[in-house]
Amino acid sequence: MIKVGVIGATGYAGAELVRLITTHPKAEVAAISSVSFEGKKLSEVYKSYININDMICENAEAVVEKSDVVFAALPHGLSQELAKICCDSGKFFIDLGADFRLKSEDEYKEWYNGEYIHKELHEQAVYGLPEFFRDKIRGARIIANPGCYTTCSPLAIVPALAAGVISTHGIICDCKSGVTGAGRGLSQGSHYPELNEGFHPYKVACHRHTPEIEQTLGYFAEEKVTITFVPHLLPVNRGILATCYAPLKRDITMQELRKIYEDFYAGEYFIRLLDEGSVADIHNVRYSNFCDISLHLDKRAGLMVAVSAIDNMVKGAAGQAVQNMNILFGLDEKTGLEIVPPAF
Amino acid sequence: MIKVGVIGATGYAGAELVRLITTHPKAEVAAISSVSFEGKKLSEVYKSYININDMICENAEAVVEKSDVVFAALPHGLSQELAKICCDSGKFFIDLGADFRLKSEDEYKEWYNGEYIHKELHEQAVYGLPEFFRDKIRGARIIANPGCYTTCSPLAIVPALAAGVISTHGIICDCKSGVTGAGRGLSQGSHYPELNEGFHPYKVACHRHTPEIEQTLGYFAEEKVTITFVPHLLPVNRGILATCYAPLKRDITMQELRKIYEDFYAGEYFIRLLDEGSVADIHNVRYSNFCDISLHLDKRAGLMVAVSAIDNMVKGAAGQAVQNMNILFGLDEKTGLEIVPPAF
Amino acid sequence: MIKVGVIGATGYAGAELVRLITTHPKAEVAAISSVSFEGKKLSEVYKSYININDMICENAEAVVEKSDVVFAALPHGLSQELAKICCDSGKFFIDLGADFRLKSEDEYKEWYNGEYIHKELHEQAVYGLPEFFRDKIRGARIIANPGCYTTCSPLAIVPALAAGVISTHGIICDCKSGVTGAGRGLSQGSHYPELNEGFHPYKVACHRHTPEIEQTLGYFAEEKVTITFVPHLLPVNRGILATCYAPLKRDITMQELRKIYEDFYAGEYFIRLLDEGSVADIHNVRYSNFCDISLHLDKRAGLMVAVSAIDNMVKGAAGQAVQNMNILFGLDEKTGLEIVPPAF
Amino acid sequence: MIKVGVIGATGYAGAELVRLITTHPKAEVAAISSVSFEGKKLSEVYKSYININDMICENAEAVVEKSDVVFAALPHGLSQELAKICCDSGKFFIDLGADFRLKSEDEYKEWYNGEYIHKELHEQAVYGLPEFFRDKIRGARIIANPGCYTTCSPLAIVPALAAGVISTHGIICDCKSGVTGAGRGLSQGSHYPELNEGFHPYKVACHRHTPEIEQTLGYFAEEKVTITFVPHLLPVNRGILATCYAPLKRDITMQELRKIYEDFYAGEYFIRLLDEGSVADIHNVRYSNFCDISLHLDKRAGLMVAVSAIDNMVKGAAGQAVQNMNILFGLDEKTGLEIVPPAF
Repeated sequence: MIKVGVIGATGYAGAELVRLITTHPKAEVAAISSVSFEGKKLSEVYKSYININDMICENAEAVVEKSDVVFAALPHGLSQELAKICCDSGKFFIDLGADFRLKSEDEYKEWYNGEYIHKELHEQAVYGLPEFFRDKIRGARIIANPGCYTTCSPLAIVPALAAGVISTHGIICDCKSGVTGAGRGLSQGSHYPELNEGFHPYKVACHRHTPEIEQTLGYFAEEKVTITFVPHLLPVNRGILATCYAPLKRDITMQELRKIYEDFYAGEYFIRLLDEGSVADIHNVRYSNFCDISLHLDKRAGLMVAVSAIDNMVKGAAGQAVQNMNILFGLDEKTGLEIVPPAF
Repeated sequence: MIKVGVIGATGYAGAELVRLITTHPKAEVAAISSVSFEGKKLSEVYKSYININDMICENAEAVVEKSDVVFAALPHGLSQELAKICCDSGKFFIDLGADFRLKSEDEYKEWYNGEYIHKELHEQAVYGLPEFFRDKIRGARIIANPGCYTTCSPLAIVPALAAGVISTHGIICDCKSGVTGAGRGLSQGSHYPELNEGFHPYKVACHRHTPEIEQTLGYFAEEKVTITFVPHLLPVNRGILATCYAPLKRDITMQELRKIYEDFYAGEYFIRLLDEGSVADIHNVRYSNFCDISLHLDKRAGLMVAVSAIDNMVKGAAGQAVQNMNILFGLDEKTGLEIVPPAF
Repeated sequence: MIKVGVIGATGYAGAELVRLITTHPKAEVAAISSVSFEGKKLSEVYKSYININDMICENAEAVVEKSDVVFAALPHGLSQELAKICCDSGKFFIDLGADFRLKSEDEYKEWYNGEYIHKELHEQAVYGLPEFFRDKIRGARIIANPGCYTTCSPLAIVPALAAGVISTHGIICDCKSGVTGAGRGLSQGSHYPELNEGFHPYKVACHRHTPEIEQTLGYFAEEKVTITFVPHLLPVNRGILATCYAPLKRDITMQELRKIYEDFYAGEYFIRLLDEGSVADIHNVRYSNFCDISLHLDKRAGLMVAVSAIDNMVKGAAGQAVQNMNILFGLDEKTGLEIVPPAF
Repeated sequence: MIKVGVIGATGYAGAELVRLITTHPKAEVAAISSVSFEGKKLSEVYKSYININDMICENAEAVVEKSDVVFAALPHGLSQELAKICCDSGKFFIDLGADFRLKSEDEYKEWYNGEYIHKELHEQAVYGLPEFFRDKIRGARIIANPGCYTTCSPLAIVPALAAGVISTHGIICDCKSGVTGAGRGLSQGSHYPELNEGFHPYKVACHRHTPEIEQTLGYFAEEKVTITFVPHLLPVNRGILATCYAPLKRDITMQELRKIYEDFYAGEYFIRLLDEGSVADIHNVRYSNFCDISLHLDKRAGLMVAVSAIDNMVKGAAGQAVQNMNILFGLDEKTGLEIVPPAF
């Protein structure tokens, strides 16, 4: 059994990792930590875990020591030293935070106001979006697990971009996320009576996930891509829907477009390209690692509209992290992730 | 007191009209009709109306006879004959359906598969978006009350378009509507367990409101405008949020952009241009006739992002209809519509 | 115009008072205060109020000075000194908190761990449940406005109790409240992802509203009544439903039972006794001052089941406070409260 | 692998069975049927099943033939003939409907207006509530899988009843159910805009689950028990919370009461008796087969309040059916049911 350590286990991503590892047939939770709840049981923080995981939150050092692979779900800036410790002691390190995602330190400075402490670690870190970078993930020691928006949006756009059928200019990602994306921390904006029956955008065209999406798109476009990214907050617990608009570079039939996606994602278990006429819906992927994609053409305006839906806590965080772990350890990528999304 | 008749009173728009007219100080509900519930009380259909409106649903003819102004909330195609009867008998006619909205019969044919029976009525019908066409509404006999998406989107875009700062090409309206927009009719898609915790687009780039939005935009652009319009279904009862993207034709500061909107909407009680840094939220306009607008610039991509929020049942249907009635009858436009949106 | 002051205007009950006074034809908001947001506009705290109420929160003293009647929506313990100041300066005082509700200081000590500072004020304070104590409210200077559960439950039970058809022993009030009842303060329990799709009881058989309900029931029973009261938290914004169980003292027909309620509530605008076969639903009273009541008999077990539904923020707080103000000032009790609950 | 057939697979209970069997390590879905969707794929009806279960709905006969065990999720009255066929062909039959639940045909007639066709089958059918009747389930061929309310309520009450500490008179079950309990069929009551933000009781003191709950309680009380049962509809997808009130026959400490429950449920994996001070919450058992129970004493009124929470679709339907299958086939009862309820 792979010994898994979870740093930041009482945050939403951390708690979700515990859920997934608990039923993983080849891994087990070896230790968990939490700054806010050190010394308390996870099942005191989340009563859903009673009798399932009653482990006590330790400190980060104890977790690293007991684990083969360390998952860190921490606020940005705090993962770098931890990565160093893990690497030095021969552990795998999977970071659910943002510290290792951007290749450009300049962009990290600009968007996160931080700096790269151990530059060699950043060089060896691999961006853990398996459907795009599986080969690099194999053999890596540090995985920069993508964020939620930054998983959902590129999955919708990349095949068309790589095939050269859409422009690299004028791409718009209008995204809508469930509230768990904002985490467990209390705020007026996620206070039930003020969020319920509401809906609004936030950080319009200035959200930190912008350069991360652009980095992935640019990789496949083989040129710099600048997008407009507007996230919105949905009054649901889970799910991200990305409605992505991209100008077509040439006339294309739906059949041809679908062929591009089918080929690109051939054999990808977690990608479900929906039949023509269907639309992606966050309802259908909840609690699972699937990404549903529906394709649409606006012939009148010369645009492709690609819509993707994921569970922000699974494919957008903990599930993808487990998928990366499976690759690192040579397991079937689906191991522990063959979850049936509930129909209701 | 203005005698108001409501045709189709047991549908959502009709029932909402009754709510608004009930507290209107210069108007009263004279008669209501319903095809599905003829002979039944409105308060049997909606128990919220018990002791408030226990009127019995009659047939359409009886309603026309008893009324000074007839509001019709009917499926498309059914308003034309009714408009004729109203006009012939000297009543005002306010149509909440789509029959009189499109100036072009060709577009009506294309998008609604219908035809114009009394062409002279279509010529004299006025598109009832008061903030844009107030002068034409005065003196009209037939008002084509705009749809919900078609109110919300143009209110966000028109000032910039009229000022010539945005392009007429590449405008995208990514809209999200509460479920009441789909009406009272039962469907699997609005069955609670299947909509709750879900979110998805529908009629992607092919919704019937597309030509209606383009008609309004084209009027102000003074040229044909083709947009991409994608509606989504939100798991909330009320509200539409339109996130509108438009390429900037030139560099512009936020200050300059705001000035354009402030001037355009000067004196408009129902338009609330939010402070810089705020975002429009459907939560803040619920049950009211307000349209909140927030403006944003994506300097990196050269786009304006204008976001508007309305209550789809009020400013997007019944409230705007009452606003039109107030204009027709020479009342202060706010009469009966100074509703305080609840904070929670 | 009656000059109204609201102390604690940025809490939920205070904000709701502002909503109701804003559309009241005989009253106006003269001043508002808030400890947390002194110096800020109400419309900065609740953006729904933009352009409707942009008043700046002052301190309590300023509010008292500018008002004819002072509404206080404060945590318990803080109203007593304020009541003294209001009385001394000849203002009416309507307390939405708990300080003046219990006649027995012993019970106040036991349940609130507080004491009565100005005993003479407690003696003259009148419990403001108009349907029960209207005559006493007239002429009072201090009104103890009942809490939400303590309005809803007695309204369901008192007619049967006063008529002697139910026992004073074994009454159970199983109540379910919307989240606004817990106020604006942040807590993990009202954090959206943890409340959404959840439901649970709290303070089982030990909630502070217990003695207040018993006091009202005891008044009509003319003997001490001990109830079991269990509140639950509903994932909705507004509404309380009280399902009240009371053992029948004798066989009774539904017809006879209904007659008792009809007579008791004859002429009461805000009480809607539903037809046999209907059930009270919080959906139908939202945003209004109505209390819907449905009556049921369990012949097998010899029980009456009386179900009542109110909006906890209106009939359960701010609306009832306005109703009391109307009585104090000799207005028609319905003034400003003839609100149509939205059908959806 | 156990070959499982699901009759009525496109209803909610049937679809949930497919979800659970899909990840069951010792069973597989052999065939499914649906009257409404015969010839269609399950994944056309529920898009969440795409690529997971794309089986085509057949007719009931085909399902029986291909299966070792047949689960029937049918409207009442339709299971009896099916049970006969299964028994005659040596298949196990697990009925999620009501046909085999009541021992008394008179009660079945009274509450369901039906009759017992094959009386010998009713005699051999075993009521499948494993925590109470495990020994009888072993060796049975026909299992009457309990309903949702009828699982949740007795689990809360039986230990105290069996121990003789509560009265058999005056027990009240105030239950609240998520909407999936009403099934997939469309109705105005589960139309999103009319259920959302609402809450109401239904079938007050006359719901068909009443005699079934009384049958289980009577078995343990060893005398006839008459309860008052009032169900309510919660605006959530899943979960039932039963707040059960029972008069104490004698003084009892919480410690003593808890000991009774701990002993009764010793070794029961699916029962989680919560710590003193905790309350059962449907949020914590969603998608799992757990039943959380919290115990409370109302010393003032001499009552026990026992609160239980289950997922109505799992422990209240499909999960319990799988638990029964595991017993029938000699598997560990937890097989395929060690589901971690998501924390959010």
